[in-house]
Amino acid sequence: MPIQEPACRPSAVTVREVGLRDGLQSLSVVMPTQIKLDWIDAAYAAGQREIEVGSFVPARLLPQLADTAELIAHATQLAGLMVSVLVPNLKGAELALASGAHLMLVPLSASHAHSLANLRKTPDEVVAMVGQMRAARDAAGSSMLIEGGVGTAFGCTLQGEVQQEEVLRLMQALLDAGADRVSLADTVGYADPASVGRLFEAARRIAGDRLCCAHFHDTRGLGLANVLAALDTGVARFDACLAGIGGCPHAPGASGNVSTEDLVFMLQSMGIETGVDLPRLLALREAAAGWLPDQPLHGALWRAGLPKTYPARIGQPA
Amino acid sequence: MPIQEPACRPSAVTVREVGLRDGLQSLSVVMPTQIKLDWIDAAYAAGQREIEVGSFVPARLLPQLADTAELIAHATQLAGLMVSVLVPNLKGAELALASGAHLMLVPLSASHAHSLANLRKTPDEVVAMVGQMRAARDAAGSSMLIEGGVGTAFGCTLQGEVQQEEVLRLMQALLDAGADRVSLADTVGYADPASVGRLFEAARRIAGDRLCCAHFHDTRGLGLANVLAALDTGVARFDACLAGIGGCPHAPGASGNVSTEDLVFMLQSMGIETGVDLPRLLALREAAAGWLPDQPLHGALWRAGLPKTYPARIGQPA
Repeated sequence: MPIQEPACRPSAVTVREVGLRDGLQSLSVVMPTQIKLDWIDAAYAAGQREIEVGSFVPARLLPQLADTAELIAHATQLAGLMVSVLVPNLKGAELALASGAHLMLVPLSASHAHSLANLRKTPDEVVAMVGQMRAARDAAGSSMLIEGGVGTAFGCTLQGEVQQEEVLRLMQALLDAGADRVSLADTVGYADPASVGRLFEAARRIAGDRLCCAHFHDTRGLGLANVLAALDTGVARFDACLAGIGGCPHAPGASGNVSTEDLVFMLQSMGIETGVDLPRLLALREAAAGWLPDQPLHGALWRAGLPKTYPARIGQPA
Repeated sequence: MPIQEPACRPSAVTVREVGLRDGLQSLSVVMPTQIKLDWIDAAYAAGQREIEVGSFVPARLLPQLADTAELIAHATQLAGLMVSVLVPNLKGAELALASGAHLMLVPLSASHAHSLANLRKTPDEVVAMVGQMRAARDAAGSSMLIEGGVGTAFGCTLQGEVQQEEVLRLMQALLDAGADRVSLADTVGYADPASVGRLFEAARRIAGDRLCCAHFHDTRGLGLANVLAALDTGVARFDACLAGIGGCPHAPGASGNVSTEDLVFMLQSMGIETGVDLPRLLALREAAAGWLPDQPLHGALWRAGLPKTYPARIGQPA
């Protein structure tokens, strides 16, 4: 007997906007700070309550994100908004602690080759660093959350296969080192719904509710199908980028993260609460197309528009 | 306890190519017959074993499909290829019976408004017509299969909501009238994974294995997620279009059917047999881009390429 709506499919989901970080860092243009502030305000007005606003990396490496502290200072004024920031090293963690953000996301690459190439550390060195970040956080008396994000969890463009056992070992190690929560990311678009089901199921058995988020790229078109598979293991938080901005350095023109508006549309159509006002989000998407005139944008809903059945589906008068 | 790999998820799936019919009928150009023959041969060489080659409609209405009889004559020479053709009326069914095709697909629109606008018949008049087609088939001593395809099964751009009860009633009526099998189609891209799960589950309880196929459009980006939801109710045949060609008359530039290559990639990655040689299919996709230089093509895999992990996933040496 098939399970049509699995008991563990959540009734409410948080979509965390990562376009300002994962999206913009992949673009060649630098978005002016004022436009980023407008984006944050519009996303908040559309009901988004978690936004990753940037990353504390040296501005010479990622000039696109050089205004991260300024964005945090603004975003933390918005009541009820969970403001997160990516930090790749201890210096970044110090800046994050000083910034007032609510959550720091520390990326770890389960692929040894990718970890060395991207972070110049082995995965276990990243684990040790998270231990130091936890000590610094506790010493500062800060309530900032530390999320360990395990990337290349489904494979890697450099080394190919990444073993599930290694992903789970590193996830457990992050928790042991003091991460408050962990997430899993398909950094390069190698996941499929079956591998997503297997890995998230196994990860949940280890981490329980501390497994907090799934991050899928739509590089090969499976982004939303992978979301569905993760949803059915009980995942209730997903990263997404407005207009699917971003991309894959190995595949010119390929999509970045799943697009926020398509993801929200899928969830709402399924009767899952997101707290997002989709028409407002689509208006923001249109604004973004104006802000990024020469950049590849993705997603499908913006083009086709909402179905005639949408108001009834979300319980509004037509 | 979540079901990670539902017991009813099939281990093998047939992808029926409908690009030559549903895809080409939406384009403004007329593809030369020789190129269609090359397409059929290349799809067959890539392992595709079911192809809808065209439609018996008056050439003045759809000049794109005027060479359907010629395509059938060729395709039926390919050993083991199931050749299907769409027929909207009794005249078309006569031509289909004379053509030697193996299956005729009779479209019925569950939306009363769409049915009148598109077929100039009520849904129940289409049911009655299928009864006449069955009588003609039996009188001819033909072994041709009759498939009743229930379209706008998830909603309609004209009338909005289409009730599930009405879809199921018409599906049952098609079987009662003599259709050998039935399929369900999201003609306008209104389905979501939850509604897909509900409708296919209910339809299977009525039709069992005579519910033979799902047809999804990717208009709003949910095509593959909807496939996954249908797969989990036991559906083992899906329509798809090479390069996702086709589209939606109400949404310029929007995608058509799910793209064959992305669908095959998802299924194979999940360990589901398709019989398709994906590198050969991608080569055909590239050829199609040359055949249709000014037409909007879709899909993601062709751009990003196969993952480094693909050979191992399908059990081949890297």
